[in-house]
Amino acid sequence: MKPFCVALAGLGTVGGGVGQLLQTNANVIAARAGRELKLVAVSARDRSKARAMDLDSIAWEPSALALAERPDVDAIVEVIGGAEGIARALCEKALANGKTIVTANKALLATHGERLAQLAEDNGATLCFEAAVCGGIPIIKTMREALAGNRITRVQGLLNGTCNFILTRMSRDGMGFDEALDLAQKRGFAEADPTADVDGLDARHKLALLSTLAFGVRPIVDSISLEGIRRLTPLDFELADNLGFSIKLLGFAQRTAQGLEQRVSPCLVPLSSPLASVDDEVNAVEIDGDAVGPLTLIGRGAGAAATASAIVGDLIDCARGMAGLPWGVPTKDLSEMKALSAEEQKSRWYIRLDVQDRAGVLAELADILRDEDLSVETLWQQARSAAQEPVPVMIVTHEASAAALARAVVRFAALGAVRTPPLALRIEPEL
Amino acid sequence: MKPFCVALAGLGTVGGGVGQLLQTNANVIAARAGRELKLVAVSARDRSKARAMDLDSIAWEPSALALAERPDVDAIVEVIGGAEGIARALCEKALANGKTIVTANKALLATHGERLAQLAEDNGATLCFEAAVCGGIPIIKTMREALAGNRITRVQGLLNGTCNFILTRMSRDGMGFDEALDLAQKRGFAEADPTADVDGLDARHKLALLSTLAFGVRPIVDSISLEGIRRLTPLDFELADNLGFSIKLLGFAQRTAQGLEQRVSPCLVPLSSPLASVDDEVNAVEIDGDAVGPLTLIGRGAGAAATASAIVGDLIDCARGMAGLPWGVPTKDLSEMKALSAEEQKSRWYIRLDVQDRAGVLAELADILRDEDLSVETLWQQARSAAQEPVPVMIVTHEASAAALARAVVRFAALGAVRTPPLALRIEPEL
Repeated sequence: MKPFCVALAGLGTVGGGVGQLLQTNANVIAARAGRELKLVAVSARDRSKARAMDLDSIAWEPSALALAERPDVDAIVEVIGGAEGIARALCEKALANGKTIVTANKALLATHGERLAQLAEDNGATLCFEAAVCGGIPIIKTMREALAGNRITRVQGLLNGTCNFILTRMSRDGMGFDEALDLAQKRGFAEADPTADVDGLDARHKLALLSTLAFGVRPIVDSISLEGIRRLTPLDFELADNLGFSIKLLGFAQRTAQGLEQRVSPCLVPLSSPLASVDDEVNAVEIDGDAVGPLTLIGRGAGAAATASAIVGDLIDCARGMAGLPWGVPTKDLSEMKALSAEEQKSRWYIRLDVQDRAGVLAELADILRDEDLSVETLWQQARSAAQEPVPVMIVTHEASAAALARAVVRFAALGAVRTPPLALRIEPEL
Repeated sequence: MKPFCVALAGLGTVGGGVGQLLQTNANVIAARAGRELKLVAVSARDRSKARAMDLDSIAWEPSALALAERPDVDAIVEVIGGAEGIARALCEKALANGKTIVTANKALLATHGERLAQLAEDNGATLCFEAAVCGGIPIIKTMREALAGNRITRVQGLLNGTCNFILTRMSRDGMGFDEALDLAQKRGFAEADPTADVDGLDARHKLALLSTLAFGVRPIVDSISLEGIRRLTPLDFELADNLGFSIKLLGFAQRTAQGLEQRVSPCLVPLSSPLASVDDEVNAVEIDGDAVGPLTLIGRGAGAAATASAIVGDLIDCARGMAGLPWGVPTKDLSEMKALSAEEQKSRWYIRLDVQDRAGVLAELADILRDEDLSVETLWQQARSAAQEPVPVMIVTHEASAAALARAVVRFAALGAVRTPPLALRIEPEL
């Protein structure tokens, strides 16, 4: 059988990893694909740079777009990145030309994935993106194929390794956020500009893709509520631990009879949950299907080799002619689903306030809790160490709506005695 | 597109679950398969029995073999069970006739899977068995497709839910083996004859299939060393816990430069391992690939609905024409691999002896340990409660070969003071 000819658009960390894996494991890959996977062309900005792979006898295109026009290319691996620009143009052109696109680009897919998938379907092309969500964890294939007989009711996970690394350091070593971020940057787990990771944007892109696969809804990033991890302190981890919880940045999407709940936010996860003990830069996803029950996948969410594992897995599916529709169902059948209102979103809540410790403060807090119908399960106030120093107050509520919680938080913040913006975290239920 | 027509051979728990899932989720299944999955025929012994599914307008064949001859059947779901007899005959006949077989029958596949897969390949037929290993966990698809770009170095897991349930009760509630088995039987997690589960035979069948997928070796059940869980006592769990370990029945297969190590046995698993905290009847598998690193899947390994999830996932792949080769590579390319000798298998060991507490016993034990070059890390002896009562002695060794351990165990057993056969368990390394 003739080789399946692959082009690499981008020779950064991930692109280099793909090239290397195709060369190192060429034999097993050919055995499983039923044909050779042959790297025939690459494009990258700097031709003179040293690369981790052998580039002799591989064509070099100065422009990535040219790869989409090469008659000798069956599939293009897009690892340029970015939701717009050259990555988008390349995918559009390649799919329009009937070529396979395999990409790790979550931003592109969460933003333009519907149009790109439709383009693929219209042109008999294939669009694969296992590497776009949680790197080496085969969550896309699992949801799209393995669980295809299920109605998925919920998908949740630790979708961002940078955040999980930072939270683990804060929890285990008592580091502050800045110190933990600094360490993550030194270890190569965080970018110089960490915004996309620590503010949850990256996890939100991934969750949008998971929601689409799980519920057949159109990917709409803005419909996912978002909160990052910058405001957590070591004290929050200590208090959570005392309550029997770990704090994790959780991507969460659930379909109920009332509507769809989608959010990315730091949450208190029960220590008994498989997600609670997933530490460092590791990712994890838990899917609930009506037939399969809960299914948890844990593995490396980033790094050149793990991401290359996902990309090459996709390439092998394509080489065998066994890649399915991008979303598992025809793109035109994706629908929109009513979002669950804040009134309908119920949870127990963890609230931490920094208050000036003076007579009457607790009464003010209690009034607000009563007014907003937030029933208190635990209230704790730290002893004052020095006069005038604000002291932390922790409140754990019984189940209450996100709307009531939000109203209370606004009123807490307006109190003179409350010195920093209140922190409120969901407490995820025990299994 | 015309419907994909399915026949069910066997209407027991799993068969009923498949029929029910095909009916309940007919819409999502059709959307993902791109065509209707239509149940057209069934066979089971007792036609008069009440069933969980609607059997009107579905043909009833008194003999399962007749399903393989029906021109209106595309795929047969074999859930009769057993490595021989009607299940084997049905699969052979159906595959010879070019029909798809989807089966949950690990005993059949571990015993005759090589021949059946060859038959499928020779006749352009498809043989799928996701449900045969760990029920709803998509471990077959993950190894065969998602990780196809990897060289797998190791696969290990909790492959038997019955054993995991029993071990959890012994560990958590201090139950003895018999009491825990009794509870498992009452809860429906163990058969009236529990041999296949508690003696590790079921896990061994599954491990044989995983080894074949991981390493491309021919499935040879007898090449897997086997030890069940009957001899564990609550004290072992207590001692293990003190050492920082959980005791789990571990299926383990690893490829090294020296050869293949394959075993099913109760092991001390570090509490830091994702496998250690997988409790009750839940299954888990950890795969190590050279690119993906460690990947862990946790979920329901049995039960009608979870098993049906896997079977229907396979059926949807078949309906889309996207099921691959049974073993991921042509069956004729499966090879044999040298087994790692007992001298080459290194581990730390946990040994528990029941000894008559009299002067000189410890010296006898120490002599044997020295002679066999087993270096002691910890030795603990329980205080005697009543004269003449044997007392437990626990020995934890540094790394030593399985051969040395076996020699020492034989010599321990021969000592007059050692009252019950010595128990020796591997201690799995920390990550």
